[in-house]
Amino acid sequence: MRTQVAIIGAGPSGLLLSHLLAADGVESVVVETRTEEYVAGRIRAGILEQSTVDLLREVGLGERLDREGDPHRGIYLQWPEERHHLDFVDLTGRSVFVYGQTEVQKDLVAARTAAGQEVHYGVSETALHDLESDRPSVTFTDEHGVQQRLEADVVVGCDGSFGPSREAVPATLRRTWEKTYPYSWLGILADVAPSTDELIYAWHPDGFAMHSMRSATVSRLYLQVPNETKIDDWSDDRIWDALATRLGHGQDGWQLTPGPVTDKSVLPMRSFVQQPMRHGRLFLAGDAAHIVPPTGAKGLNLAVADVALLAPALTSLLKGDAALADGYSDAALRRVWRCTHFSWWMTTMLHTSGDPFDEQLQLSQLRWVTSSEAGATGLAENYAGLPIGF
Amino acid sequence: MRTQVAIIGAGPSGLLLSHLLAADGVESVVVETRTEEYVAGRIRAGILEQSTVDLLREVGLGERLDREGDPHRGIYLQWPEERHHLDFVDLTGRSVFVYGQTEVQKDLVAARTAAGQEVHYGVSETALHDLESDRPSVTFTDEHGVQQRLEADVVVGCDGSFGPSREAVPATLRRTWEKTYPYSWLGILADVAPSTDELIYAWHPDGFAMHSMRSATVSRLYLQVPNETKIDDWSDDRIWDALATRLGHGQDGWQLTPGPVTDKSVLPMRSFVQQPMRHGRLFLAGDAAHIVPPTGAKGLNLAVADVALLAPALTSLLKGDAALADGYSDAALRRVWRCTHFSWWMTTMLHTSGDPFDEQLQLSQLRWVTSSEAGATGLAENYAGLPIGF
Repeated sequence: MRTQVAIIGAGPSGLLLSHLLAADGVESVVVETRTEEYVAGRIRAGILEQSTVDLLREVGLGERLDREGDPHRGIYLQWPEERHHLDFVDLTGRSVFVYGQTEVQKDLVAARTAAGQEVHYGVSETALHDLESDRPSVTFTDEHGVQQRLEADVVVGCDGSFGPSREAVPATLRRTWEKTYPYSWLGILADVAPSTDELIYAWHPDGFAMHSMRSATVSRLYLQVPNETKIDDWSDDRIWDALATRLGHGQDGWQLTPGPVTDKSVLPMRSFVQQPMRHGRLFLAGDAAHIVPPTGAKGLNLAVADVALLAPALTSLLKGDAALADGYSDAALRRVWRCTHFSWWMTTMLHTSGDPFDEQLQLSQLRWVTSSEAGATGLAENYAGLPIGF
Repeated sequence: MRTQVAIIGAGPSGLLLSHLLAADGVESVVVETRTEEYVAGRIRAGILEQSTVDLLREVGLGERLDREGDPHRGIYLQWPEERHHLDFVDLTGRSVFVYGQTEVQKDLVAARTAAGQEVHYGVSETALHDLESDRPSVTFTDEHGVQQRLEADVVVGCDGSFGPSREAVPATLRRTWEKTYPYSWLGILADVAPSTDELIYAWHPDGFAMHSMRSATVSRLYLQVPNETKIDDWSDDRIWDALATRLGHGQDGWQLTPGPVTDKSVLPMRSFVQQPMRHGRLFLAGDAAHIVPPTGAKGLNLAVADVALLAPALTSLLKGDAALADGYSDAALRRVWRCTHFSWWMTTMLHTSGDPFDEQLQLSQLRWVTSSEAGATGLAENYAGLPIGF
């Protein structure tokens, strides 16, 4: 097999890249370890920042998003006895959309299928070759057990932090940074209308809690829990009780309405960055190069921003102009570090660490962010997202 | 002896309090462990925020400050290869003054001496009594070895974190928060014109450095050093070499001019807060209740803000209206925690910890603070200082 761009990974970054490249007349083939059903069904992020929405609309992926997505003006930040609304539109002129990653994935699959995009799901033993040459390739065993070689001009790793792409950069040429946080999220999906019009981020002495949503009938909620928490120790009742306490059920008459839990999982919190995001004819995008804790809602948006820079860079490269491709890693990493810092900042402001001095710093910072226009604008501009290529 | 307000400590907060009380017709007596020469000579902070300057002018202490003090529009923030100016006046309409604490102390001593203020220097064995009654007292041995009892309506502890006042609050009724930072400052005074028009705060892989000044002919410079650093290990040459490297000597033609070092010391970095700041007829102000690391230039300013709240509160209390006195601790602590957070934030943004991920977060934050108006304004409004009683 031969194509122009071999894309490893059929998540949002891989499929969006194939979509953007196709619009520029560049061919690609996508290979993916998981099945199509698995990729479509996995539950991930739910917040699209302004520039992500703008890009999806621009490339014909905005129709259902505009019909079913829920534009949000901001978020609530709260701690015991106080709830404050930050209005991103007033503060920065930008807003966010609640529209699940699973929905983005469905729209991408529909668009790529309609366009005849070649995607190989359920592959194994994926390996990258000759990345320093002009003729790199990817070998894999396809879902029928047949060994395949995909030759290309360029290989793009959109295969997350456990895929083979990021480790295909020689160890002596890559540098990584990593931080594991001393807490995790217990997340649930529930078939119940959200008890709030906008997301609630709640600091509480028992630990962080968050009320998010996927639609008018599906709520998504999170609790800070210790690492190594066993999901079996958390009955639905225990979860709803903890959420009620931390989210302030009864405070100023606000009520948290529980409902049937349809999904329950524990998510670790990690920051990870690998640079450079390019080695020879291999380019990395999304989670293959960087992981953020979910607190700032940046993971999916950062992957989209990478791909938005990468598609024109590869199109130019294939036409003989290497300038954008040569600048890709530095350009992408500026945003990666901004979002890595912001995600760390939101995370460490809201999660209790057990240190009493830290608690007071967190409360002082929360008071400042909700009372100073500069403080509020700083959070808002990072959360609603900087323009792509800022 | 009998007075209305017994003030323990003749540093800036104690003397300023006696000054403000006298303006309201309230009598006070000040007792101080150190000699007058020691208090006058000790080298401390050098930056006065807008509200401190406004207050000093208002109470007749602004004449020499306006003649000899140096108004600064902002600061430089830098890291290798980049130096950025933050203009506080443009960002917030407020500015700062370079005018050493030693100068403020001289002005206070002159004013209080002219007014006939009773101050006992060189006292020992200071003890506080009957604080829960309406007739508290302070006993001490005066400089001649004579035991004295000072009876008062109110006692104010302006005696720093090592004085007896803060521990006179019963242990079961006070709560403290403390953080010791894993680095110290090596500070020098040098008889040389500053090599910069405004303060330089420099992040550097070798550690933080800072170029401050006391006057047109006296420079004040600092280096981040490990805790337990022995001053003898740092010759003047070694200090100037490290300063030149970290401050970017030669970068874009900028030159650091060394000169004779007249003072050299190692300063620990600590955050400390005790609350409440009132117990019965005892009130705490300044370092007796809170210590900040010097990075945000908040220590002296916070002491002045305490005293600015406390003087009218005590005047009212002595006239039979307890409302302001009852609200003093909460009102003062709002600013204390804001400044404690800001000082921690400046400190942890600029001092290297040895953790490579932290380094990248610091650089990302510095880039944001110097490129986002919200980021710059957030720093500026905290540094130039919030209005008293905000």
